[in-house]
Amino acid sequence: MSSFDIRQIFPPKAAIRPLSDAACLAARSRMDSQAKPIHSLGRLEEIAERLAGMRSHPLVVEPARMFTVAGDHGVAREGVSLFPQEVTRQMVANFLAGGAAINALTRASGMQLVIVDAGCAGGPFGDKVVDGRLGDGTANMCEGPAMSEATCLAGLANGARLAMQAVEEGCRCLAIGEMGIANSTSATALYTHLLELPVERVVGPGTGVDRQGMAHKAQVVRRALEANRELLASRYVLWPDPVAALQCLGGFEIVTMAGMVLGGAACGVPVLVDGFIASAAYAAAVLLCPWAAQYCFVAHASAEPGHVLAMTSLSGLLDRYFQAQKTGVYPWTRGERLTAPLLHLGMHLGEGTGCAVAYPVLRCAVAAYRSMTTFGEAGVSCPDRLG
Amino acid sequence: MSSFDIRQIFPPKAAIRPLSDAACLAARSRMDSQAKPIHSLGRLEEIAERLAGMRSHPLVVEPARMFTVAGDHGVAREGVSLFPQEVTRQMVANFLAGGAAINALTRASGMQLVIVDAGCAGGPFGDKVVDGRLGDGTANMCEGPAMSEATCLAGLANGARLAMQAVEEGCRCLAIGEMGIANSTSATALYTHLLELPVERVVGPGTGVDRQGMAHKAQVVRRALEANRELLASRYVLWPDPVAALQCLGGFEIVTMAGMVLGGAACGVPVLVDGFIASAAYAAAVLLCPWAAQYCFVAHASAEPGHVLAMTSLSGLLDRYFQAQKTGVYPWTRGERLTAPLLHLGMHLGEGTGCAVAYPVLRCAVAAYRSMTTFGEAGVSCPDRLG
Repeated sequence: MSSFDIRQIFPPKAAIRPLSDAACLAARSRMDSQAKPIHSLGRLEEIAERLAGMRSHPLVVEPARMFTVAGDHGVAREGVSLFPQEVTRQMVANFLAGGAAINALTRASGMQLVIVDAGCAGGPFGDKVVDGRLGDGTANMCEGPAMSEATCLAGLANGARLAMQAVEEGCRCLAIGEMGIANSTSATALYTHLLELPVERVVGPGTGVDRQGMAHKAQVVRRALEANRELLASRYVLWPDPVAALQCLGGFEIVTMAGMVLGGAACGVPVLVDGFIASAAYAAAVLLCPWAAQYCFVAHASAEPGHVLAMTSLSGLLDRYFQAQKTGVYPWTRGERLTAPLLHLGMHLGEGTGCAVAYPVLRCAVAAYRSMTTFGEAGVSCPDRLG
Repeated sequence: MSSFDIRQIFPPKAAIRPLSDAACLAARSRMDSQAKPIHSLGRLEEIAERLAGMRSHPLVVEPARMFTVAGDHGVAREGVSLFPQEVTRQMVANFLAGGAAINALTRASGMQLVIVDAGCAGGPFGDKVVDGRLGDGTANMCEGPAMSEATCLAGLANGARLAMQAVEEGCRCLAIGEMGIANSTSATALYTHLLELPVERVVGPGTGVDRQGMAHKAQVVRRALEANRELLASRYVLWPDPVAALQCLGGFEIVTMAGMVLGGAACGVPVLVDGFIASAAYAAAVLLCPWAAQYCFVAHASAEPGHVLAMTSLSGLLDRYFQAQKTGVYPWTRGERLTAPLLHLGMHLGEGTGCAVAYPVLRCAVAAYRSMTTFGEAGVSCPDRLG
């Protein structure tokens, strides 16, 4: 690990604790006595087990707050997206008007929606947008770091503070999603560097560029990695340093979301992580504090081809870490469980839309856990082996 | 196709119509103009497209009614389940008491829950259970047909009537699930025969039998196929006759669910299909009336290993049929779209639990379709190629 200390960004709650083994085991035992074939609720049971391990008593995931974090990217100037940069700003206006996909889906799923401006080009919005501005769009990562280290740490702190504030206001589930033209290029660079993956395997169409556009995106990522080579190479311990990676290759919305993962985990609440870009924030956050992964659920597998690859690769890194901690014996610390997406619906919209579709799955897991009776209570005969 | 005529079971609404191409295309065009990357809501867009094709104006899937259909199986005497037969009855009591998984999950998802007794051993329940009794448990399919042809047709009619009645009462989405000790053996026999699959590849652990138990189940299925060989072989046109298959190898809850698929499709409402057993009813129903498949959504991929295999195989049969009808040019008649499960959560509980977890996905699809604004309305710049 790097010299990064989470207390730098949020002193009052410095600890992200591993899940409580005792609470996970108690939940498992309760579910095994409920009137159903053993393990027959599949991942719903895994979810309930992990929620219990977060020391959530009684188990609740309501209310839930969706953070849709917007930011602009200097690398948009390289022509990596089908859409012009002003679309970031226009979409924030669309969020405020209530006409975007994330409005429809959070309403349908019963989640609060909070829009955060982490640094859109063109100056602040009105007071309906949370001001978490780190600048007026990042610098072009092809020409050096996207932001300063101080800005990166400020973004992590912003995100952590917003998450902690949500929990103080009663939220029992958080979700992270984003808007930012060109941010799939930034996410691609982050995965390539943090997970040491070949850029050709991570790069994808984003909002819909063709094969030629993808080759261009890959080339832009290579230039960004080269432009930041020295700084990136100077910081590596167990794996590439996530703060350096975020500083050089990230975006304002991405560092803010990474802070939200840390803040949510520190408060012991589950964090739903959206697709390709939000998961890059997730990857950076959990490489800073691997225990944070236990608090997160990857909402869905993006149609962006690099997403599942990146999550599989992250899973391997987490396993390496947890094994070194000698805690890998418990199933809820297996990397695969912490990175396997809940849904596979071919979505690739961003904004947090995957989280909004996945959130009802968490609610279902909680409902089954809390209100199913046991074989004994229900007067249902159970097989001898369950006795 | 066999000589079966759907008018035998529900004269007033004899027609299951193909989806409206015009309505599907109009929905596609609307979604392509909404402010998001094209096709970026993935399967949510497919869902909305198909719902529109059902001539649903405005698009709604609320209220939704979950039918949990219970029945007993003579083949339970062969010792194919970990659980004794009385558990079917005990679980119906648990449904009525509100303590089962399906109670928790339908509450969480905002669905009505209706329990149907299609023929549990031990006589009728009280008036809180819909009486659709076809007998006091089926005969043992290892010794001949599980029921008479007249009973089988009565079960299809019961299911169709319950579905149509639900729609008359205002329901805009139906869902089918079941309870019946030994019914995974019946479903295995149905898939093996209807889809001409090797029994070894279809058989699975059901409620949790071990390898030896699975070998026993496979042997029981072989005996059932042999005991009914003549009747099954006598009726085959494009594919094995589903009425004969249901009569010989089905269960009372399975024929009733097959009728619900037909009734729902005839009324033009979507039908969510639960896992391994409900999907056997789905397979039988759509081999009777292939167009009914366009109205159905397979809620989830069961952990039961034969489920995905069976759905893939059914997909091939549907493609063969639709191609013969010269309608295979439209994507919403592709078998793969009509059989690919929405969720992959490793569940295998039955009762309709997969439908209850998948129903919010339908609600999300409708919400996005109905309330997202277009690029023009939202004042968002769109790429030139969308102009």
